[in-house]
Amino acid sequence: MSVHPAASFSRAPALPFAEWPRLEKGWVWLCGAGPGDPGLLTLHALNALRQADVIVHDALVNEDILDWAPQAQRIAAGKRGGKPSAKQADICDTLIALARKGLRVLRLKGGDPFTFGRGAEEARALMAAQVPLQVVPGITSGIGGLAYAGIPLTERGDNQAVTFVTGHDATGGPAASVNWPALAKLSDTIVVYMGMKHAGPISRALIPGGRAPDEIVSIVMSATTSAQRVIVSRLDRIEADILAAGLEPPALLVIGKGVLIPGQAAPRVTLHPFSIAAE
Amino acid sequence: MSVHPAASFSRAPALPFAEWPRLEKGWVWLCGAGPGDPGLLTLHALNALRQADVIVHDALVNEDILDWAPQAQRIAAGKRGGKPSAKQADICDTLIALARKGLRVLRLKGGDPFTFGRGAEEARALMAAQVPLQVVPGITSGIGGLAYAGIPLTERGDNQAVTFVTGHDATGGPAASVNWPALAKLSDTIVVYMGMKHAGPISRALIPGGRAPDEIVSIVMSATTSAQRVIVSRLDRIEADILAAGLEPPALLVIGKGVLIPGQAAPRVTLHPFSIAAE
Repeated sequence: MSVHPAASFSRAPALPFAEWPRLEKGWVWLCGAGPGDPGLLTLHALNALRQADVIVHDALVNEDILDWAPQAQRIAAGKRGGKPSAKQADICDTLIALARKGLRVLRLKGGDPFTFGRGAEEARALMAAQVPLQVVPGITSGIGGLAYAGIPLTERGDNQAVTFVTGHDATGGPAASVNWPALAKLSDTIVVYMGMKHAGPISRALIPGGRAPDEIVSIVMSATTSAQRVIVSRLDRIEADILAAGLEPPALLVIGKGVLIPGQAAPRVTLHPFSIAAE
Repeated sequence: MSVHPAASFSRAPALPFAEWPRLEKGWVWLCGAGPGDPGLLTLHALNALRQADVIVHDALVNEDILDWAPQAQRIAAGKRGGKPSAKQADICDTLIALARKGLRVLRLKGGDPFTFGRGAEEARALMAAQVPLQVVPGITSGIGGLAYAGIPLTERGDNQAVTFVTGHDATGGPAASVNWPALAKLSDTIVVYMGMKHAGPISRALIPGGRAPDEIVSIVMSATTSAQRVIVSRLDRIEADILAAGLEPPALLVIGKGVLIPGQAAPRVTLHPFSIAAE
């Protein structure tokens, strides 16, 4: 990363409110950390980081963000997409146990906790256990990651609807419960989370649904981080292009819109954040 | 709002990075301000606020946020949904003129600039004018506002797709270009931005598409602000319930999922952020 955490916590921010919400003992705050760039953290999440006794974080949460809370114990609870997810119950049990010890618990999830993040399950488990809970939304990669890649999610007059789907479901296979023909007919932007692994089956489901084989697909890998890569392909070539480019998860597929800069195969991207300087 | 801006700018935050990006003279930063609660601002947006010479802001941007940049000139450029939008070209011209004067320009938009925010048009206009541009995504109300209302956007095993649509199009009428029957058949969560005015026509388009007349619709008004109100209705009653409740725009419609707290018509909501304390 080209950003640098403060050398010591004494340089951490004095937040601009006179009064910030307290992360009380025995509470869990379920916070989104955004897609990667620490600058996309919210002020509420930063406030939570400063107060936490323990942080239970996903694998995708940027280390620089965790370094802003040197006082907190860290527990890695990440799961990568496509893997068996038996551990979700363990994560919930851990959160409940930590809160019952009277700790200030920050559950920090990549992106937004309620957008394909299984945060709803965690919230329900905490509520069932009578653990008090606060939810802080975060920037999801399907929005923030696309912006960094120079891809506008919506364009007036061009798309009035955008759909976010998961590329795989609870089985680890391509999401069988998604009505791909209906999705194809919405004729607007489709953003597929964790879609790289099943890009082939997804494109083969969309084309018979009415999408053009040469429709543009962009793939955004490791959005908003220093590892970000953006590849522009088309529906009928996406699988081969992913292989050829050697892309790795996590990656977003974006179907239906081009990139912001016409005629440019891959936009110039600078981190923190996307920018374009005139020639 | 129950939050309080710092009494003076001297109490504004020292940001936690050693090096923050500079908002250079003659540049425009196109930033999302989030759905309302100042605590949902990103660190990058706060960094931009501190440096701006001039802020061109939407009507929906919280005054408390603007108060964090007392050094900056403010230009209100807001448009409300459904109104004629002839002024968009004026907004673009203003941004270009300010940048050409050599000012540090912050274009601050409610929510996320690329999510039904016409930010793409502004970005294209700036690029055409050779004005250097940086884009900072924000939390969109369709994600952050729902979280504050206690409504999980996605639930594993329950919905693998979520669609964001605009309730009206460029004509001010209900979005004619949306394929409502196809949208209905996606069988997942639908979030309608600016959907209150056309809630009746939208529900009447979705029911013949296959949605149950008694399917739950939540309406979230003024999400994440002190004026937030959440009403739970059903597709075949939504129009009457909006009238009876006296709701005002801006409001989101959420079709397809209930609220997080089973059996509770309207969740208890505290600001900054949604929280649930055990009884």
